[in-house]
Amino acid sequence: MKTNRLNANDADFVPRLMALTAWSEERDEEVGERVRGILRDVAGRGDAAVVEYTNRFDRRDAASMADLTVERAQLEAALERLPAEQRQALEAAAERVSDYHARQKQDSWHYRDAHGTLLGQQVTPLDRAGIYVPGGKAAYPSSVLMNALPARVAGVAEIVMVSPAPDGELNDMVLAAAAVAGVERFFTLGGAQAVGALAFGTETVPAVDKIVGPGNIYVAEAKRQVFGKVGIDMIAGPSEILVVCDGKTDPDWIAMDLFSQAEHDEEAQSILVSPDADFLARVEEAMERLAPTLERETVIRTSMANRGALIQVDDLDQAMEVVNRVCPEHLELSLDDAEVWAKKVRHAGAIFLGRHTPEALGDYCAGPNHVLPTSATSRFSSPLGVYDFQKRSSLIGCSPEGASELGKIASVLSRAESLTAHARSAEMRIKKPL
Amino acid sequence: MKTNRLNANDADFVPRLMALTAWSEERDEEVGERVRGILRDVAGRGDAAVVEYTNRFDRRDAASMADLTVERAQLEAALERLPAEQRQALEAAAERVSDYHARQKQDSWHYRDAHGTLLGQQVTPLDRAGIYVPGGKAAYPSSVLMNALPARVAGVAEIVMVSPAPDGELNDMVLAAAAVAGVERFFTLGGAQAVGALAFGTETVPAVDKIVGPGNIYVAEAKRQVFGKVGIDMIAGPSEILVVCDGKTDPDWIAMDLFSQAEHDEEAQSILVSPDADFLARVEEAMERLAPTLERETVIRTSMANRGALIQVDDLDQAMEVVNRVCPEHLELSLDDAEVWAKKVRHAGAIFLGRHTPEALGDYCAGPNHVLPTSATSRFSSPLGVYDFQKRSSLIGCSPEGASELGKIASVLSRAESLTAHARSAEMRIKKPL
Repeated sequence: MKTNRLNANDADFVPRLMALTAWSEERDEEVGERVRGILRDVAGRGDAAVVEYTNRFDRRDAASMADLTVERAQLEAALERLPAEQRQALEAAAERVSDYHARQKQDSWHYRDAHGTLLGQQVTPLDRAGIYVPGGKAAYPSSVLMNALPARVAGVAEIVMVSPAPDGELNDMVLAAAAVAGVERFFTLGGAQAVGALAFGTETVPAVDKIVGPGNIYVAEAKRQVFGKVGIDMIAGPSEILVVCDGKTDPDWIAMDLFSQAEHDEEAQSILVSPDADFLARVEEAMERLAPTLERETVIRTSMANRGALIQVDDLDQAMEVVNRVCPEHLELSLDDAEVWAKKVRHAGAIFLGRHTPEALGDYCAGPNHVLPTSATSRFSSPLGVYDFQKRSSLIGCSPEGASELGKIASVLSRAESLTAHARSAEMRIKKPL
Repeated sequence: MKTNRLNANDADFVPRLMALTAWSEERDEEVGERVRGILRDVAGRGDAAVVEYTNRFDRRDAASMADLTVERAQLEAALERLPAEQRQALEAAAERVSDYHARQKQDSWHYRDAHGTLLGQQVTPLDRAGIYVPGGKAAYPSSVLMNALPARVAGVAEIVMVSPAPDGELNDMVLAAAAVAGVERFFTLGGAQAVGALAFGTETVPAVDKIVGPGNIYVAEAKRQVFGKVGIDMIAGPSEILVVCDGKTDPDWIAMDLFSQAEHDEEAQSILVSPDADFLARVEEAMERLAPTLERETVIRTSMANRGALIQVDDLDQAMEVVNRVCPEHLELSLDDAEVWAKKVRHAGAIFLGRHTPEALGDYCAGPNHVLPTSATSRFSSPLGVYDFQKRSSLIGCSPEGASELGKIASVLSRAESLTAHARSAEMRIKKPL
């Protein structure tokens, strides 16, 4: 199998590794300009603009937004007609994802200091969340669950989902997943026009407070442009996996784990790190043998050749250095004592512990979210979670004594900053000596 | 005092209120282009470019980055030479802010399901944070504490601070605050070149994982442009306060609380909401009487005239409707049972409870952060906090039984998505019947 071979002791290892894993978002001035135009139009003309763009880009023939609205009853109907096995799998996955996310929910808290002053934070859900789900070929019901369920668990009052239906085609399982996830409103919209409708609101589409979910370059650019007016999640890059294996896992398992990432698209990245040169060779042999058995062999071969790598290290400590340099979206620790080794991981989206935890289980049903920071952004960001649909307000309630004591400190500091009204406002609460 | 007068029962109340509180970030294509050029240059030429831009924009005469580097010993020296009263106030504020923020720190967690599968999140600090602190006239030591201390509490290994020193002028109290807040590296850099240095790193300035702190339009645009490469905090708009008062607080106190916001700049917004028409008149009289006693009278009069408002409501329930429409950065509930009323607040950056809690105490020393979501972004964002300097990695560790059971669900769902390698990877872990 054609892929990149690196040794962590090579003189040029670090620059080669960095070049291989580097990814910078393609941003195109022309795309930026087109998106700006669409957003301006949707903000100004509402439904009329949204219908026009949708008819044009998705080859639809809608007379009004009514034709682009999917009623809750249609979602339920899609769920009803799903084969029993698929419905059960969807509901079992939703239950596990909800259970896990319930543990992320944050509560309001407060305490009182020695002066009786109350300090804390009040935690509240967003009023309304918008979920963007790609349509057409890459319509993934699992993405509906992973984006909508954290909002549901957070207590978001209304979840508005948009998903394009090119040529009017809708994926039944996506509709069913929306039913399971408790989506209240569903519009068959996509592209920048869908993002604009969610951000600004139209006569039909309610304006939301935050937009999450993956999309193409137009969707990503539109999310960037409306950021600030509404919240957005991270802009995702290609998906990646890094597997660290001690050489004692079945090479077929590891080969298929690498493929499960490589099959996504040509830009996906699969890296195996091992101290066992012989094991690397056996995985390579397994990859060559297994690739022809897969529908997406061509995509797999392309992504393994361009962005894949087999990396030999001296030992597992050196492997962990590679991990913390790459900061992978998915990290599989296929080795003994994985829980102990995990504590050495400083940056990763999700850590899969042990030989029995392939990434695919996390993608669908283990419980944690599959929306994860890519392209080394795990250095500063986290998996999508309930915390993305909650926000906090600081609480400060001074007792008269507390205000008097704090007023003295605030007076000195605000006068040092030449903010006299701040100082006077604080000083008015200082108790006068009797 | 010239300001806007509204009554919540007026037919045009909502559109007038929305127009008054609307604020959209000024974005200028020319600024965008200039910033893009500076960032490109800093990424390509490092220190040399940073020194050049700094000499030009800040009227410095630096030969190298050494001339733009402030050593930790200089920070300590600034703290040593501070008047005792200022030093004590700074240290008391830092202690309270640290104590409060320590309660925000999140810990790793995990649990095991019925099959013995481990599920959880590992919480880790960022490796390195960059703090931007404006220099010159608006150099605020309190901002140093509020930006750096949450990073310190989170356990960030290295805090890199930049603050411009136009004409070489440095504010001693800003240096002292950096010493108190545990800043490791300090460079006298500002503008887009400072943001570029932090985002890309140079020979001297280490690349950071996240950049926080306020700045002018060039700084805000630069942060937008590096977003994704590094994390950033929200782009802040003008500061705002909304005071709800039942009419029983000293009108002078309320007038000064409104002024403490209005004195920031001409764009700042101060709004008073009360069911008591007579009280609104008394506060207005107090404002007229107190304004001439303040250094920043002109700024105060401008912001009150342009963006300030006195709003009459029928009752406190209607006042809360106004609050949840405006979603203010600072909300003062100057009334009885403020803790009860606070529960009706859905969106606010910080809530100041009762008559003895002027915003100024929160700005300096109460404990909560003074970096708060402005321009109604409290609908989806939170005060700066320790959570902004921590991130999470999902943990999944399947037992062989767990993997087998989850594999069956993942197999059905991944095959429905035509991702066969995902399915095979999961199926390999399903136990074979004996």
